[in-house]
Amino acid sequence: MIFIADLHSLTTRQEPSLLQARVLELAACVLAAGLDPARAVLFVQSAVPRHAELCWLLTCLATHARLAHLPQYKEKAATMKEVPLGLLLYPVLQAADVLLYGGTHVPVGADQLQHLQVAGALARTFAHRYGRAFPAPRALLADDGSDRLRSLRDPNKKMSKSDTDPKSRILLTDPDDIIELKIRKAVTDFTPQVTFDPETRPGVSNLVSIHCLAEDKLPEEVVQEAEGLTTAQYKRVVAAALQRALAPVRARAAELRARPNYLRDVLRHGAARARVRADAVYERAAALAGLR
Amino acid sequence: MIFIADLHSLTTRQEPSLLQARVLELAACVLAAGLDPARAVLFVQSAVPRHAELCWLLTCLATHARLAHLPQYKEKAATMKEVPLGLLLYPVLQAADVLLYGGTHVPVGADQLQHLQVAGALARTFAHRYGRAFPAPRALLADDGSDRLRSLRDPNKKMSKSDTDPKSRILLTDPDDIIELKIRKAVTDFTPQVTFDPETRPGVSNLVSIHCLAEDKLPEEVVQEAEGLTTAQYKRVVAAALQRALAPVRARAAELRARPNYLRDVLRHGAARARVRADAVYERAAALAGLR
Repeated sequence: MIFIADLHSLTTRQEPSLLQARVLELAACVLAAGLDPARAVLFVQSAVPRHAELCWLLTCLATHARLAHLPQYKEKAATMKEVPLGLLLYPVLQAADVLLYGGTHVPVGADQLQHLQVAGALARTFAHRYGRAFPAPRALLADDGSDRLRSLRDPNKKMSKSDTDPKSRILLTDPDDIIELKIRKAVTDFTPQVTFDPETRPGVSNLVSIHCLAEDKLPEEVVQEAEGLTTAQYKRVVAAALQRALAPVRARAAELRARPNYLRDVLRHGAARARVRADAVYERAAALAGLR
Repeated sequence: MIFIADLHSLTTRQEPSLLQARVLELAACVLAAGLDPARAVLFVQSAVPRHAELCWLLTCLATHARLAHLPQYKEKAATMKEVPLGLLLYPVLQAADVLLYGGTHVPVGADQLQHLQVAGALARTFAHRYGRAFPAPRALLADDGSDRLRSLRDPNKKMSKSDTDPKSRILLTDPDDIIELKIRKAVTDFTPQVTFDPETRPGVSNLVSIHCLAEDKLPEEVVQEAEGLTTAQYKRVVAAALQRALAPVRARAAELRARPNYLRDVLRHGAARARVRADAVYERAAALAGLR
């Protein structure tokens, strides 16, 4: 089950007229990156009403104190004059997303572990109050460092699609010259050698991680190959590896973007399959809560 | 549009095994009291998924500060160790209930005026951010004092179905002896005369209000007729008037309760009609927000 979280996107300001195009763009990228719509269920969150319905049931079991203490909320809320309530509820809707499909294994980045713990806690509270409706969800962490990529502009922050600086990240669809530019401008340190030590040298180590992902190698291999290169020279190697890795993805994404009706069909078909599963789990939960 | 707010009921602890029976009981009472299911649309809130879906859209527009300052929330939250988030979101779901049908006139008690203002404010915020989707809802306050009935046990509190003391209220289905008992035990003051002065004599004035509603009279008439009676004697008059007024309602409610399948049909039919209206309004709002 893979979905595009348009309901979550509303917790920050969106330009409504661009949202549909961005949904199709994301669907094209996910498919271009290799997701097989015959095996995975790919859909848009708001096409399945049960997400919002289960979110309400869980909202009645969640406490303000628990949610207000989550680091991601505190971090985002600190930058705002008026905190939209959706930001506080963000992890509750996430919990609904997972529990609605009886999710047992959830691929997350390390920064999402606490949100997944909220989902587990809500599943237990539900079980305690009404009866068991959801299995305990477990985190599936990547073991290749792909969930720990750092911002190219500030290696102390994670790489993020919502960062305001586009040069902080590589998109699956970035053209070659942009990839080259972003890697060349990546913030590193003043040591010219290439080593892998994420703690003391997060910048250059981040380039090593990206390089490893692009060529499916281990940090030791990559560092050995880079012996004798300065960081500036190594950046050209990383950019070239990324360009080779992403060129076919970008080409497939372009093909798919040119077929919006195909993309809409995939999402519609996915939503129909998701609704069948979500209906079954939600109806059972609603019955346990006394609503049926 | 009249609905039974089972989603709201989950903001406080419910016994799940009793909820369905209580929904049917309430439907029976509402129909027994005269609601015509051919003219009004009577349904159960959770049977229309759009309530929860619109609630999420509005949650993203609401702020914690505004909701946390509402007196009803502060009052209820003050009595709790752990405040369920559903209590904070209560007025947002209420706003969704109203706006989902393009509600323009909303019959409320005076204590709900602030919640209706929240709905109006959210409609304006939505219009400002995405475009106009909902008319401004206006309060329909009763002019017969029926929205200001006081607790029989403490005339400083409103009469409430959720009060922990059943003797604080008259149910439409109370048998004659219970009506007599509750009115006899109603808290008044130490002045024996019957007068109507809600400010200084809330207890006896509350009995006058109830009497007026039971016999469709004005306070002046009722007080004049009660001249020379002590409060204790007057209570017997009020009880008798209530018994006469409620006997036919109680009888119809009993008939209806004996036909649970009829009640379920009425609610199912109502939900089908409600869904058609809710779908149209929600789809338009979702499109404005960029979700369609």
